[in-house]
Amino acid sequence: QTEIIRHDFDLAAIYVSDAQYNRNIYFDTSPQAVSLYLLYNHWLPRVLVYFFILVDMSLAVFEEPAVLPLPTWATMLVELLCLLVFTVRLVHYAKVIPRDKFWKDPKNICIICIVLTLIDMIIYGALTATNCYALRWSRVLRPLLLVNVTEGRQLRRAFRSIRNALPEIFYVFLLFMFSVLIFSLMALKLLGKRGLKTMDGSPYFTNYLEIVFDLYVLVTTANSPDVMMPAYNASFIFTLFFILYIFINTYIFMSAFLAVVFNNYKKYLKEEVRQLVRAKRHKMVRAFAVLQERREEGGELVVTQANWNQLVRLVQPDISNAHRELLWSVCDDKNQGFIGKLAFVQLADLLNIEVITLKSRPHPLQSICPTLYLSAPSRLLCRLVQHRGFTIMYDVIILANAVFIGLDEENPMISNSEWVFLFLYLLEILLKLYVFEPRSFFSKHSFWNWFDTIIVVSALIATIINSALKSVGGYTSRQILDIVFILRVLRLIRVVDSIGRFRTIINTLIRIGPAILTFGQLILVVYYIFAMVGMELFKEKVKFYDEDSNDPAKAYCGNPLLKGTTFAQLNYCKNNFNNVMSSFILLVELTVVNQCNGFATVTHVSARIFFHVVMVIFVSFVLEAFYVEYSVDKGDLQTSLERKIEELELAVAQWYRTVDAFLQRMFEADLDPEDLAENDDAEAQTNFANPSFSSV
Amino acid sequence: QTEIIRHDFDLAAIYVSDAQYNRNIYFDTSPQAVSLYLLYNHWLPRVLVYFFILVDMSLAVFEEPAVLPLPTWATMLVELLCLLVFTVRLVHYAKVIPRDKFWKDPKNICIICIVLTLIDMIIYGALTATNCYALRWSRVLRPLLLVNVTEGRQLRRAFRSIRNALPEIFYVFLLFMFSVLIFSLMALKLLGKRGLKTMDGSPYFTNYLEIVFDLYVLVTTANSPDVMMPAYNASFIFTLFFILYIFINTYIFMSAFLAVVFNNYKKYLKEEVRQLVRAKRHKMVRAFAVLQERREEGGELVVTQANWNQLVRLVQPDISNAHRELLWSVCDDKNQGFIGKLAFVQLADLLNIEVITLKSRPHPLQSICPTLYLSAPSRLLCRLVQHRGFTIMYDVIILANAVFIGLDEENPMISNSEWVFLFLYLLEILLKLYVFEPRSFFSKHSFWNWFDTIIVVSALIATIINSALKSVGGYTSRQILDIVFILRVLRLIRVVDSIGRFRTIINTLIRIGPAILTFGQLILVVYYIFAMVGMELFKEKVKFYDEDSNDPAKAYCGNPLLKGTTFAQLNYCKNNFNNVMSSFILLVELTVVNQCNGFATVTHVSARIFFHVVMVIFVSFVLEAFYVEYSVDKGDLQTSLERKIEELELAVAQWYRTVDAFLQRMFEADLDPEDLAENDDAEAQTNFANPSFSSV
Repeated sequence: QTEIIRHDFDLAAIYVSDAQYNRNIYFDTSPQAVSLYLLYNHWLPRVLVYFFILVDMSLAVFEEPAVLPLPTWATMLVELLCLLVFTVRLVHYAKVIPRDKFWKDPKNICIICIVLTLIDMIIYGALTATNCYALRWSRVLRPLLLVNVTEGRQLRRAFRSIRNALPEIFYVFLLFMFSVLIFSLMALKLLGKRGLKTMDGSPYFTNYLEIVFDLYVLVTTANSPDVMMPAYNASFIFTLFFILYIFINTYIFMSAFLAVVFNNYKKYLKEEVRQLVRAKRHKMVRAFAVLQERREEGGELVVTQANWNQLVRLVQPDISNAHRELLWSVCDDKNQGFIGKLAFVQLADLLNIEVITLKSRPHPLQSICPTLYLSAPSRLLCRLVQHRGFTIMYDVIILANAVFIGLDEENPMISNSEWVFLFLYLLEILLKLYVFEPRSFFSKHSFWNWFDTIIVVSALIATIINSALKSVGGYTSRQILDIVFILRVLRLIRVVDSIGRFRTIINTLIRIGPAILTFGQLILVVYYIFAMVGMELFKEKVKFYDEDSNDPAKAYCGNPLLKGTTFAQLNYCKNNFNNVMSSFILLVELTVVNQCNGFATVTHVSARIFFHVVMVIFVSFVLEAFYVEYSVDKGDLQTSLERKIEELELAVAQWYRTVDAFLQRMFEADLDPEDLAENDDAEAQTNFANPSFSSV
Repeated sequence: QTEIIRHDFDLAAIYVSDAQYNRNIYFDTSPQAVSLYLLYNHWLPRVLVYFFILVDMSLAVFEEPAVLPLPTWATMLVELLCLLVFTVRLVHYAKVIPRDKFWKDPKNICIICIVLTLIDMIIYGALTATNCYALRWSRVLRPLLLVNVTEGRQLRRAFRSIRNALPEIFYVFLLFMFSVLIFSLMALKLLGKRGLKTMDGSPYFTNYLEIVFDLYVLVTTANSPDVMMPAYNASFIFTLFFILYIFINTYIFMSAFLAVVFNNYKKYLKEEVRQLVRAKRHKMVRAFAVLQERREEGGELVVTQANWNQLVRLVQPDISNAHRELLWSVCDDKNQGFIGKLAFVQLADLLNIEVITLKSRPHPLQSICPTLYLSAPSRLLCRLVQHRGFTIMYDVIILANAVFIGLDEENPMISNSEWVFLFLYLLEILLKLYVFEPRSFFSKHSFWNWFDTIIVVSALIATIINSALKSVGGYTSRQILDIVFILRVLRLIRVVDSIGRFRTIINTLIRIGPAILTFGQLILVVYYIFAMVGMELFKEKVKFYDEDSNDPAKAYCGNPLLKGTTFAQLNYCKNNFNNVMSSFILLVELTVVNQCNGFATVTHVSARIFFHVVMVIFVSFVLEAFYVEYSVDKGDLQTSLERKIEELELAVAQWYRTVDAFLQRMFEADLDPEDLAENDDAEAQTNFANPSFSSV
């Protein structure tokens, strides 16, 4: 029987927490490397790295073409600092993992990025010093850091799934393009020779490539029905052609496209999740191998309760003794004092389960002043507040408030009513605090209580500041007023919580939040790269002139090419690539499809392709990936969770059964008094919240 | 033991074919009713009813406001005839089913429709005779006949599924509307007081209802980015508001909406399919009950082979003896000469399976002139044609043809090349006919062979007519030329068949055809109703003037309200409700989302609502229902089919095993010589095609 030393516990604890948080780093098991690895996984360096990535990416705001210009040396200094931080992190990483693994790790794209950025900075510095034209091309690489940093696992997984799904999608796209080409040829032959004219008098459907482009845009319905009006005016028979085209290419092909994207993305994501589960099991087996001992000759290998306790304390130092005891009783259901491999492996999943203990604690006022709190009027008040009518009354108040907000606030009666509503909302919160125990009222899972209190208190503060400013100088700050307005409107959202059906939908939406966040990062990476490329290609091609500018160039956004176009007519001048803010807004607009024709006229035919690549990628990304994420959340993950929960079902049943026995034992045994205080109520209920989705 | 008489066989045959085609009519079992029922299910009356429904609906083309005007008495006479046909059909139906069932049948909405139409016609006739204003309101009811006619089962099922899914969808929609209202209120407060102006100088975001409408349209992205440009020009901070709005309402809510529609529609459709399967089983059990006999005292009830044979011959008179014998050997796998209830029930599914027998029949030329056909050069030719290079060569020719089509056909070289290509295509077909057996070349499942031959032969005929006309009078008919062009382009599609991946996608698309057809009917019903209502409300509000008209009203489509609007500027005058053709085209355009603002300015605010109801219903219908149909086709139906196929798997295995034994028996027994000829080849392979999807 080997003795288990401190280092072994550390090692096992790392394996377990790696399994718990789905980390996949193959680290060196020497004592130094292990303590370095513990430091590597500490939240502070991780947050720091993310912070510096953010700083690095937001440098685009200050660099040429800048929103807020800073001297070049300043931005370069900050960038150097960022690169230094990344390098330190990478060196740390290199110390943690075995030398031979380091060079094979795909995350080392980071190293290439850093080196390339350094080279680019040197070249740029030299060129600008000699007043030559210089290009900061390495800015495109910045978002790659976000993907390839150690913590970007989920993002990499999403990218990998998309990449793997691409070939299948490509075939549908090819067939779709073939269909567009055939239809264009038919349009050329049918309509090209009829001498029709478009609105602006140019010949209609005579150039094959332009037909292809027009029909391609028609698929997105952006130029419908303009593109078919000349043909329709000639004869309604021709509309049949367009209707058939839209039916086949917009509906049939897009549906096929969607279905293929959907199925493939799902397939590969499923595969990724499967690998994840396998890796997790593997790590738990290794942790077991470290702590295992043989109780009798030829018997099975087990982990004793003492070792297990020490391990859990290392993995999760803030776990309460009661919680830990509960976990143990789930694992060791036969109460043997040791567990085998099978029971040990589920520990990572058990630790991921949030245990909420609902306790009916007495109200603090009751302890302070029991006679008053338990008097008849006080109890009547409690009953009133807990009554359904109270909620309904406040829903009516909220609706009345909505009407008052909609009315003109210049009217003194209306603006004074705001104080009444504020008072009513404050009264509600105070009443609730009087009735309900404050700690459970402000518990971690009472989203709406927090929401309410924060909104109402901020609204109160902002309103007071606003009226103070007004009464002092007769001056109203526009910014504070805006905040007051927003807070007032936000208060109304609370009404949603009163209707059960709405609550269900909102809760579903909140639960898919983490999945959306991953997707948001993905979008950020793509937007950033496109914004950088777009800025270099198109900056200053379209200029925005102020409202009161008298420059004649204002009518055509400073670009003679735009004279008389709808782009200029509709005053789209601010939709340009002149700085990173405008670029992002423009990319969002392009994602939302419409009016791309206006942009395309500005530059070159190649720009059309660029914009349409952006458009197609984004539209498919947003729509499909969203749909997929949603379904993954409801389907894949749910089934994998369901499986997990099913596995745990038995354990949970035992858990409930052992709670009584456990509590009894606790009263008898000499346990930590704080733990006892946390569980001194026989009504303690143990609930399972959903394991956090963010883990997968 | 009861004797089975002729009537019993008829009855059982009806039950079986009802189960086979999923008919759900509860008919009277008396001999007269049964023979009437057989007549009722005959294809001729069914086709006739559909024909007259079509005639009835297409009357809208000839009625005021007409595309092709006909006198009122003529259209009314035709409509009377249609009503007569429907009445006869209903009377027939009343004779078939028991009196007490007749009045409870929901299909009797037809009766109400007919009566209402008659009343409307009388009122209309009277009013027009006295020159009063009259409205043909009953035209809205016409498409209801299409839904409620006995054969509209699938359509009713689709409608029912949508109706059942509505309540759940409604809650998401409510929440969505709540979100739009809240955002509008915020926009009013934030932007209303800043004195911003829209492009045409009107105040921006000052009227709450207009904001709601604008933001509602923004969800469809139809007015993006126009609606946010004034705010964006003021400060880019405001774009955050719009981006957040689009993110929440377009992406999050639309995804939730889609997911809910999808899940609910699927759930109810699944339920419908489940009921269908139950009803089918029930009918087969009744058929069994009619034919059952007890072979020995206390033994199980069975159907003998003789009775079974007679039944199958009644159900499917054109079935070959060989096919019937195969079916029997699947059912009676133990070769007992009788089958029990379980084996009998699967008959309906077995009859739905298409059996394709691939036979390597010798080429007719081989029998006529064997020495020539089997000579060395002839065999070399066969090998050449069957070689992969032959296909590749023709793919290259098709691509070359595509290039030639794209070039200017005024060039005599190009127009003469058409003859060369026609000759090459004809040669290909002739060569293939020389090599492959003509009957298998033109078999039912060789879609591309049929496609090729028809296209090439029609192109040949059209080209010959065209050049004949040209050489005779130097005159080219535009219509014939159009047909020639279309045929030429269609020929190019053939290239798709050469690429395996494309073939798979196309085959999938073809297979979902029947589901799309059901959906097409559904759309037709909704379009028709909206077209009728739209025509009554909006006819002649927008007028179209010919190209060479000099009427000053042409600039504003004959409606002073449209002066200076983009609707008139973009020359959308032909998008109106002036006749049924324009209405349909306009509705299709509205389905395809864009440019609805233009239309809305024409009439009244109420029209906005109308158009948006149309839009939302259609967009959701088309997108979701399509997606659903597609997924149903790939998911639900596939699983239900897979289950079916799984059930049959065992049977099929036996089938294959019994084929040999069966063929052997056949050679020995004295069977129909034609059947023998059909199966005289030991290489006969039995393939299962997919059971037709239209059955569910």
